[in-house]
Amino acid sequence: MDDPLSVGFLGYRFMGKAHANALARLPMFFPDAPSVERDVLVGTDEDALAEAKERLGFARTATDWRDVVDDVDVFYNLGPNFLHVEPSVAALEAGTHVLCEKPLAPTTEGAERMVQAARDSDATAGCAFNYRFVPALQYAKNLVEAGELGEIHQFRGWYLQDWLVDPDAPWSWRNDAELAGSGALGDLGAHTVDLANFLVGERTGPIERVSGHLRTFVDERPDPETGEPKPVTVDDAYSAQAEFASGAMGTFEASRFATGHRNDHHVAVHGSKGSLRFSLERLNELEVLREGDRGYETVLVTDADDPYVDHWWPPGHVVGWEHTFVHENAEFLRSVASGTQYEPDFEDAMAVQRVLDAIAESDETGAWVSVDG
Amino acid sequence: MDDPLSVGFLGYRFMGKAHANALARLPMFFPDAPSVERDVLVGTDEDALAEAKERLGFARTATDWRDVVDDVDVFYNLGPNFLHVEPSVAALEAGTHVLCEKPLAPTTEGAERMVQAARDSDATAGCAFNYRFVPALQYAKNLVEAGELGEIHQFRGWYLQDWLVDPDAPWSWRNDAELAGSGALGDLGAHTVDLANFLVGERTGPIERVSGHLRTFVDERPDPETGEPKPVTVDDAYSAQAEFASGAMGTFEASRFATGHRNDHHVAVHGSKGSLRFSLERLNELEVLREGDRGYETVLVTDADDPYVDHWWPPGHVVGWEHTFVHENAEFLRSVASGTQYEPDFEDAMAVQRVLDAIAESDETGAWVSVDG
Amino acid sequence: MDDPLSVGFLGYRFMGKAHANALARLPMFFPDAPSVERDVLVGTDEDALAEAKERLGFARTATDWRDVVDDVDVFYNLGPNFLHVEPSVAALEAGTHVLCEKPLAPTTEGAERMVQAARDSDATAGCAFNYRFVPALQYAKNLVEAGELGEIHQFRGWYLQDWLVDPDAPWSWRNDAELAGSGALGDLGAHTVDLANFLVGERTGPIERVSGHLRTFVDERPDPETGEPKPVTVDDAYSAQAEFASGAMGTFEASRFATGHRNDHHVAVHGSKGSLRFSLERLNELEVLREGDRGYETVLVTDADDPYVDHWWPPGHVVGWEHTFVHENAEFLRSVASGTQYEPDFEDAMAVQRVLDAIAESDETGAWVSVDG
Amino acid sequence: MDDPLSVGFLGYRFMGKAHANALARLPMFFPDAPSVERDVLVGTDEDALAEAKERLGFARTATDWRDVVDDVDVFYNLGPNFLHVEPSVAALEAGTHVLCEKPLAPTTEGAERMVQAARDSDATAGCAFNYRFVPALQYAKNLVEAGELGEIHQFRGWYLQDWLVDPDAPWSWRNDAELAGSGALGDLGAHTVDLANFLVGERTGPIERVSGHLRTFVDERPDPETGEPKPVTVDDAYSAQAEFASGAMGTFEASRFATGHRNDHHVAVHGSKGSLRFSLERLNELEVLREGDRGYETVLVTDADDPYVDHWWPPGHVVGWEHTFVHENAEFLRSVASGTQYEPDFEDAMAVQRVLDAIAESDETGAWVSVDG
Repeated sequence: MDDPLSVGFLGYRFMGKAHANALARLPMFFPDAPSVERDVLVGTDEDALAEAKERLGFARTATDWRDVVDDVDVFYNLGPNFLHVEPSVAALEAGTHVLCEKPLAPTTEGAERMVQAARDSDATAGCAFNYRFVPALQYAKNLVEAGELGEIHQFRGWYLQDWLVDPDAPWSWRNDAELAGSGALGDLGAHTVDLANFLVGERTGPIERVSGHLRTFVDERPDPETGEPKPVTVDDAYSAQAEFASGAMGTFEASRFATGHRNDHHVAVHGSKGSLRFSLERLNELEVLREGDRGYETVLVTDADDPYVDHWWPPGHVVGWEHTFVHENAEFLRSVASGTQYEPDFEDAMAVQRVLDAIAESDETGAWVSVDG
Repeated sequence: MDDPLSVGFLGYRFMGKAHANALARLPMFFPDAPSVERDVLVGTDEDALAEAKERLGFARTATDWRDVVDDVDVFYNLGPNFLHVEPSVAALEAGTHVLCEKPLAPTTEGAERMVQAARDSDATAGCAFNYRFVPALQYAKNLVEAGELGEIHQFRGWYLQDWLVDPDAPWSWRNDAELAGSGALGDLGAHTVDLANFLVGERTGPIERVSGHLRTFVDERPDPETGEPKPVTVDDAYSAQAEFASGAMGTFEASRFATGHRNDHHVAVHGSKGSLRFSLERLNELEVLREGDRGYETVLVTDADDPYVDHWWPPGHVVGWEHTFVHENAEFLRSVASGTQYEPDFEDAMAVQRVLDAIAESDETGAWVSVDG
Repeated sequence: MDDPLSVGFLGYRFMGKAHANALARLPMFFPDAPSVERDVLVGTDEDALAEAKERLGFARTATDWRDVVDDVDVFYNLGPNFLHVEPSVAALEAGTHVLCEKPLAPTTEGAERMVQAARDSDATAGCAFNYRFVPALQYAKNLVEAGELGEIHQFRGWYLQDWLVDPDAPWSWRNDAELAGSGALGDLGAHTVDLANFLVGERTGPIERVSGHLRTFVDERPDPETGEPKPVTVDDAYSAQAEFASGAMGTFEASRFATGHRNDHHVAVHGSKGSLRFSLERLNELEVLREGDRGYETVLVTDADDPYVDHWWPPGHVVGWEHTFVHENAEFLRSVASGTQYEPDFEDAMAVQRVLDAIAESDETGAWVSVDG
Repeated sequence: MDDPLSVGFLGYRFMGKAHANALARLPMFFPDAPSVERDVLVGTDEDALAEAKERLGFARTATDWRDVVDDVDVFYNLGPNFLHVEPSVAALEAGTHVLCEKPLAPTTEGAERMVQAARDSDATAGCAFNYRFVPALQYAKNLVEAGELGEIHQFRGWYLQDWLVDPDAPWSWRNDAELAGSGALGDLGAHTVDLANFLVGERTGPIERVSGHLRTFVDERPDPETGEPKPVTVDDAYSAQAEFASGAMGTFEASRFATGHRNDHHVAVHGSKGSLRFSLERLNELEVLREGDRGYETVLVTDADDPYVDHWWPPGHVVGWEHTFVHENAEFLRSVASGTQYEPDFEDAMAVQRVLDAIAESDETGAWVSVDG
């Protein structure tokens, strides 16, 4: 057996836990995936870092990512958005493989630097759009690409959360334009736009132009430490209209103010022969309408021949949100080990970023904006 | 008892049948509504007209609406859109009450003439937005206006049909811009915009500006008689973004190409305290999330104290689409008989029309458009 | 045109209203059905009767059914269960057609007298199991009989209501064994057993033996007039297990204590090739799983070629509970007019009654009971 | 830190994988749970055993459980039902803690021996009814025990699968009465009866008497190796009626022939104040109707203060079937380490077994059977 790939993580909170868990589960469920050594965990709060190292099963810690990016085989950039660019670029320049959380960067310039670094490097650069690895969505993509829905007329997606509806919910870096880039648009919309590209892009071509609408419902929020009001400089919700190259229509929405919706990412596709619907809160299910059907069939995508399912449990034994990370890591590490192309890569993430940028620009100009690229 | 109100209908197909049925059902279920005599049915195809007169229970027929509009107490304009203006204006000028199907007119100018005629007349002028009379939606409106949802942040509506997805579906007046005004936008979007005004308008104020996107997927369709291709000059689908006076966001969509959706009119409202959802294909149900709830409660709006329900059946005995017309007619005729204000009137319909016009204009200019008014 | 059939109703409350409405709607929607004259309404409370006569559109009233049963062409027995036997038998002996509400009679002896009277009469005798006339259930029956579900293994039905869960809900004749025969079993279970026979009986043969369980949760209830407690002598809920002639299994349940369920009649069928599910509160829908499908398809049974739908509205325009009565009356009156066999007839109702009797007997003996017949 | 508990597993297939995964996940998600060493894996097929040892992370293997039961701290009996008794009893007699899969044993005598061994031992004996550890069901139990549903009137449960509906599906030990004890009744019904005890038992008392119905639809199946037909001596489906000590009613069903249902375990509870519903295929959701509600509220039981959820992910990030095993193992190992009582123990499992035995006996005698105990 080859030596295990040594891995360093920047970030040990939500995404750190999700990816560490994924790596820990590979040997039992994806025994053919490359073996991995959780080597070093990077962070600044040394106490929290030490605790996380133990819990997440890492060998050591570091407080400066500069010491790490050329010292491991694979660098996971799981920090806040404003830390995506420099460490990822440095790692790629050092020939270290990179898996970076989405969205790629808070600014287009930063994202372009990342793409260029990926182009210039022999290392693999992946962006962690984990929803591509929901079995039901891979099944959906296969249906679309096999032509079962015919010509695609409409893609509709919305991502509803409610964790900011309380005006007294505390300020965080996610409310700051410089640190986060944007709000619901970048955090949630990135997922929806990527799923549009993933699910129907092969049929519709790329999104060519968009019209956007951003809205901040609560303008300032209390600093979690001082209680003093701090300005909210990102959107609480956005909507967008889009035209794909094929002429297909798209509509996109996200909100952090949709009371009662915790994590409701919904996508719908309507084609000339069929339709499909998916909701993240019921992620084992896909609603499918094929040619000749009269209504949607609720397919529980847990059969043995469904994507990834043979690695897990018998039919009807549902998986959870975290399983998408296991699939993603298995695929990414296989690409790393074999030197094959990984999708979604930084170009794919850049394609998303361009759409998000155009939506934000459209909100400012009040006019449709062409998507560069 | 007073003399019954004599009624004339222009149109005897889909909407003619729906309103004739409503009138026929009033005595048994709304015994307090004014009594009505189905007097005269107006149309041009004499054979079809004669058959319809018998079936719909009218006393006589006429082939020219000009002979009728001043000869009845109430004139129902149920003809195609291009016939909405002249007969309605003539009736109002003659002091005859008018109930006109939506949308008000194919052009703004026509609609403005209708509004002016209504202002200048002592007669009652109503526009038949029947979905206001779904018990579940009246219940929803009451919740919103009682503040149960708090400040309204978002209104989202979509109306999905699929009857044109077959490219060989025959051409009809509904595919022609001159005859119909617009396509999915006018036919379906009118309902959604009116429901937005009805459900949340009291809280959000009017829609102030919009951005629109119209799309025709199939450019020509076979003439039903000759089979020759005729151009489709209206939209098959539209989307729109909107801003209400309060700053609330709106999104609107409709399609005649949403494969598998027969008549799926869906509205959702998200407020600071709660949310609600409704779907026309399950019109007895309202999904409601109130302050303190963790998820939507599926309310079967068929209890004795729900709007209009005491007129019908015991709890749990569901009503259908047609019942909205019975409620609408009961309310309209009461206003006629008592001389009180009826809603939705021509002004309400004009408010819808201005939004639809702004959406269409935005589609042409590629920029947000302010809603006049 | 033939003379209209003169009709007399015993009963003018819930069922009287439902059938009067059905008759009133036939000319517009089922113009080929025989024409009917709502002639005489029978009851004992003269004031209520006079009001109902006007509202339900009858020509006259009577206070003794004996004066009516041979004086009309068709006699509708819509009175409480304890009034089902004598008037129905008298009418049939007079050669008058009879449509009697379900269940047939409070006792087997009474039901047998009714069946015998029907056999001895040339008149048509129908029992008003209206749920056979739900379009979705006729569609379901067609699927089963076409073999789309294969060999039928299981029928499962439950009928949940909650109108008695309040222990202070007042006593009524429905709580009395002598007047009603039984409680949830007779009132609700009769519908479920009849649907089993209707939907799968052709494939499974009749129910041959049953095991039953009846339960009264609240033993006495206040008299609505005096407030004094009166004994409840019928079941509040029942369950039953059944074996069909083919060896298929059946389970049946009903409750008037299922908090939150207003009128939830649910049936499910599982066969070797497919399954189906139906719920009365969403009566326009049928969930169907055919051979090769992976999940249930939610079919909105409102297309033009669905049973009875062409009489009503375009696809997606849902009908309500009351429409089942219109279909039932159209079919019954056609049988009356043409002299053809009507189903469900008194024999069909007797088959239901025998199953209910066996369930009740099993509850007493604690053993399985063979269904006579 | 204490020495880790050494663990031996009998069985390495479905349940072996589920429990090994659970143990592997404890350190990251339940850091306070006792630490565990996956020591020895017991089986007979040495090649498969060696592969499983590597994949499931065990230190060594053994081919005779007799060599293991007194050599580890905790013995997991995950073998087929016919291997539940002897190894479990031997382990308990050796003072080794035992977690045994359900149902307890193929025969009452065997189960009684296990219970007696547990009573006589200082070691902890748990039975692996994992569905007690679904967060939504713990939440449900809390609602019931807090009185939110009032007096419990009805418990209804069904467990539908379809993996045997194909008559050519191969014979396995699960089709043999001696090896498995019973079929759908023991395999699936055990879960449903245990959930009844768990959810409502505190309110209703135990099930006192039952009436059962078992059915084998396909009498013989091909031997997977020879293809020769072998007799099926267990039930393919069962139904049962039950009476609880409080007078509450119960109904129970399971099937391996419910076409289209992969793993649909559904329970419903109706009380005087409220109701609830749960389905295993949507295991993150609970439908709850509380006093004053008009319909079921669909609660996504993934909030931070829901049972076990703080160990996992933020609100709305759903968990899967396997998580129930992690919770179960955390609780069991805590009881082992602390010497506190674990539930469900062998007595709880015996209570289930007695109900299942009574159901089977009732099927044979055709009469209601009292549940011993």
